[in-house]
Amino acid sequence: MSKPISVALVGATGLVGRAVLDALGESSLPLSRLTLLASARSAGTRLEHAGAELPVAAPAEGAFRGVDAAIFCAPAAVAREWAPRAWAEGCAVVDASPAFRLEADVPLVVPEVNGAAVDGFRARGVVASPGGAAAALSVVLAPLHAAAGLDRVVATLLEPAASAGHRALQQLEREAMDLMNGREPEAGVAVPHRLAFNLVPQVGAFLEDGRTDAEDGLATELRKVLGAPGLRVAATALRVPVFYGQAAVVTASTARALPAAAARDLLRRSPGVKVLDAPAEGVYPMPMLAVNDDAVLVGRLRDDRSQERGLELMVVSDELRKGAATNLVQILERLAALL
Amino acid sequence: MSKPISVALVGATGLVGRAVLDALGESSLPLSRLTLLASARSAGTRLEHAGAELPVAAPAEGAFRGVDAAIFCAPAAVAREWAPRAWAEGCAVVDASPAFRLEADVPLVVPEVNGAAVDGFRARGVVASPGGAAAALSVVLAPLHAAAGLDRVVATLLEPAASAGHRALQQLEREAMDLMNGREPEAGVAVPHRLAFNLVPQVGAFLEDGRTDAEDGLATELRKVLGAPGLRVAATALRVPVFYGQAAVVTASTARALPAAAARDLLRRSPGVKVLDAPAEGVYPMPMLAVNDDAVLVGRLRDDRSQERGLELMVVSDELRKGAATNLVQILERLAALL
Repeated sequence: MSKPISVALVGATGLVGRAVLDALGESSLPLSRLTLLASARSAGTRLEHAGAELPVAAPAEGAFRGVDAAIFCAPAAVAREWAPRAWAEGCAVVDASPAFRLEADVPLVVPEVNGAAVDGFRARGVVASPGGAAAALSVVLAPLHAAAGLDRVVATLLEPAASAGHRALQQLEREAMDLMNGREPEAGVAVPHRLAFNLVPQVGAFLEDGRTDAEDGLATELRKVLGAPGLRVAATALRVPVFYGQAAVVTASTARALPAAAARDLLRRSPGVKVLDAPAEGVYPMPMLAVNDDAVLVGRLRDDRSQERGLELMVVSDELRKGAATNLVQILERLAALL
Repeated sequence: MSKPISVALVGATGLVGRAVLDALGESSLPLSRLTLLASARSAGTRLEHAGAELPVAAPAEGAFRGVDAAIFCAPAAVAREWAPRAWAEGCAVVDASPAFRLEADVPLVVPEVNGAAVDGFRARGVVASPGGAAAALSVVLAPLHAAAGLDRVVATLLEPAASAGHRALQQLEREAMDLMNGREPEAGVAVPHRLAFNLVPQVGAFLEDGRTDAEDGLATELRKVLGAPGLRVAATALRVPVFYGQAAVVTASTARALPAAAARDLLRRSPGVKVLDAPAEGVYPMPMLAVNDDAVLVGRLRDDRSQERGLELMVVSDELRKGAATNLVQILERLAALL
């Protein structure tokens, strides 16, 4: 058990921020103090933590003085502005945003996979946490990579409303209500088209080559977390009419043979993974089973007979838990031992 | 224009049967008579066609005498029993079920792709129509195969409630209503788990190797329709909380180079295809755009940089139109010219 530390949470009022608050409550990490920060718009709110009501303030000069570590669950622009200031005031940062994920001197960490990399935080005072899909997939792919050498991954990402934030949840709810009551829903703003009872093949913004930043991010983040710079990744991300629970359908090829049965055994022994794989009995991962679970669910494991050494599988996780809050707090726990 | 023919529709009261009735109304094929048949349970119903109310009868000995051709939209067991009887009474059959799809002496036809194969109906008196996903994908993949030689296809199929029939539509609606009203939905029967705001990675029944018959069927049917016995296919099928509109996310590799820009141009000139591919303007295929469209929508076309000669794309279609009724009536139109 490490000594009690003083922690700040930036972006405390958002969907991920609130999930971090829950995860801190479930963590065995002793806190000497918890400071809640959010945008000026949300400052003044009070949030409950461990039976107390804590005030939320806007970040300001000196806010990180005397704070050991901060978890940032804020947009990338906020992280870019405030993470260096926090570190200048002596506060290490665990960042949920994409701002620093690909910086060479910032570790990108999924503790089950590359937890020791947290040590590298001293270069910039920042440890980055990957996007939800990359976090969940790396937990499942790391043992397969270690056993057989991953060569190429083809992934279809099925992103729930929650991974686009609170307004996307509201949009899906309002649209579903309208449609069930025979009303044409108004255009939403969080997802660029109607999401209820539809599939929207756009997560994030489009790059020049026709991929989105979410699709590109999955590839680059997986390579960094897995320490597999040569890994080839083809990804397509869709927003699906699901509130919570992020899914990925994966086809992988490996350098050495790894039959599905061996992969299943391996994953049963892997940290952070739950194997749900008795399909004939209706047991397989689904978003409704992943909600509020810190583990990453994997199933539908089978040999891919369409290539020489191939595996097919499906991964589902809670985008707010292992996809965000759980991973952030796991990083914080590692970091605390180094402070 | 061919001479008027006498047509029977078996399974007229089902979801596909009613869509065929609509498609027959939109077809230029002149009918001298239309006989509606359905299971004993539905016999006695009346259905509207071309302004008249037509009675629905149960199939019986002699029902196909004097009928030139029948469209079967019934379960495979019904097709296996009644299609040979119909042919024995001189009536050719266009079958929507999986019963005859893989029989060597039964043509499996998507008219835009292999329409001339209808000629082979005389061997058994049957022409089969593929499953909805295979029909839609073959329309898009055939021109790519002709241009560059398809080698391997990885597909994630996202199947709407409609492709599981009327009861699945009711299940999704009831579950969504219950959840929006804060009630826990009762267990459904058409889809093996809750479908509303969830993803169910089971379409059809599981085979011994962990694939479903829907996943296996896509591979075998694509090979037959495309005339590509060596095509390698890896497929995963999920049931998604969408009422209508079937989607497939595809990564393909080709024997010869085919850049995405060239594939896009080629598809713009291909029959039965609509290219919706201006992603930065929010233009891409979605189920809500495919409903009631006879065409197959394709977009998100891009070079797959994770393999040497790869293409990524997304295909969406109406599972009741090109995925079923439209294809059945197109086959009937070809057949009519041969009778």
